[in-house]
Amino acid sequence: MDPNEVDPHFKHLFIKISGNDSEISPFELQEILNDVMKKRLDVKTDGFSLQTCRQIVGLMDRDGTSKLGLLEFHALWTKIQKYLDIFRRHDSDSSGTMSSHELREALTEAGFQVNSDVIQEVVGHYADAHYAIDFDSFIGCLVRLETLFKMFKTLDKKNSGKIVLDIQQWVCLAIN
Amino acid sequence: MDPNEVDPHFKHLFIKISGNDSEISPFELQEILNDVMKKRLDVKTDGFSLQTCRQIVGLMDRDGTSKLGLLEFHALWTKIQKYLDIFRRHDSDSSGTMSSHELREALTEAGFQVNSDVIQEVVGHYADAHYAIDFDSFIGCLVRLETLFKMFKTLDKKNSGKIVLDIQQWVCLAIN
Repeated sequence: MDPNEVDPHFKHLFIKISGNDSEISPFELQEILNDVMKKRLDVKTDGFSLQTCRQIVGLMDRDGTSKLGLLEFHALWTKIQKYLDIFRRHDSDSSGTMSSHELREALTEAGFQVNSDVIQEVVGHYADAHYAIDFDSFIGCLVRLETLFKMFKTLDKKNSGKIVLDIQQWVCLAIN
Repeated sequence: MDPNEVDPHFKHLFIKISGNDSEISPFELQEILNDVMKKRLDVKTDGFSLQTCRQIVGLMDRDGTSKLGLLEFHALWTKIQKYLDIFRRHDSDSSGTMSSHELREALTEAGFQVNSDVIQEVVGHYADAHYAIDFDSFIGCLVRLETLFKMFKTLDKKNSGKIVLDIQQWVCLAIN
């Protein structure tokens, strides 16, 4: 995408929030997302954590600045709109959160083919005490899945379906 | 360790905080840790996140209840005391946080032999905007490292120094 193709209103917003460096850090992203989400009544969230925002920046950062420039932030915004849409359509009881059953279908629609073991890990990790997944956890989960699928693809150079790791590689990759 | 060997004062405290089920959930653990830590002035923390508490319970849970019983909680307390001690001794400028340089030495003392790539990932993941690591992040990091080393050992049954994973195994293991 060309910077000239970005909607002028979006560009103006980006300039306003990105500050002097014209880049959005995980700290700035956390503020923006929490600001935007608290105005919505249709989806529940207890706030995006810094960790989730770091993972989002890690996924969307293409030029290695560890921050998001205009085009990277635009791509993120498009992704969040898509995920918000999936979240709302699969929240069949309009609870504002997702049950583990609703989650399974939402993940499939988002393009993640995962088995029951993965679903179980996801629910154990992202659900609250009532087994519900709110919007920030949902985004955190999808971003993490996308990152992990991408990492696997990069590591599996010969497309063998398997990766081989030593301890330092394993720790380095999985610690995030 | 035998339950009878646990200090009666500790046992009394455990009964008080664990409630009816005599087990401590990640939610209860979060409350306890944040309660205890806010009384300390020598180490900084912005509060233990639920995610960190889940990882702690995941590491210390031996009987698969996803909660901590008396002996599991006692083992955790001993571990936290040890890590608090390491944190304070390596916080050479008494800032209440750890710099990346201080962290490298603290990790070695805690028994984690990790290379520069891992240190870089750890700092990127656990440090704040000023590259400082506070106490809850330090505990989160050590718990994560211990979990990852343990997972590797379990997977590397023949002690070959390498593990082989397919995509579902990779996602399942790394998502936490």
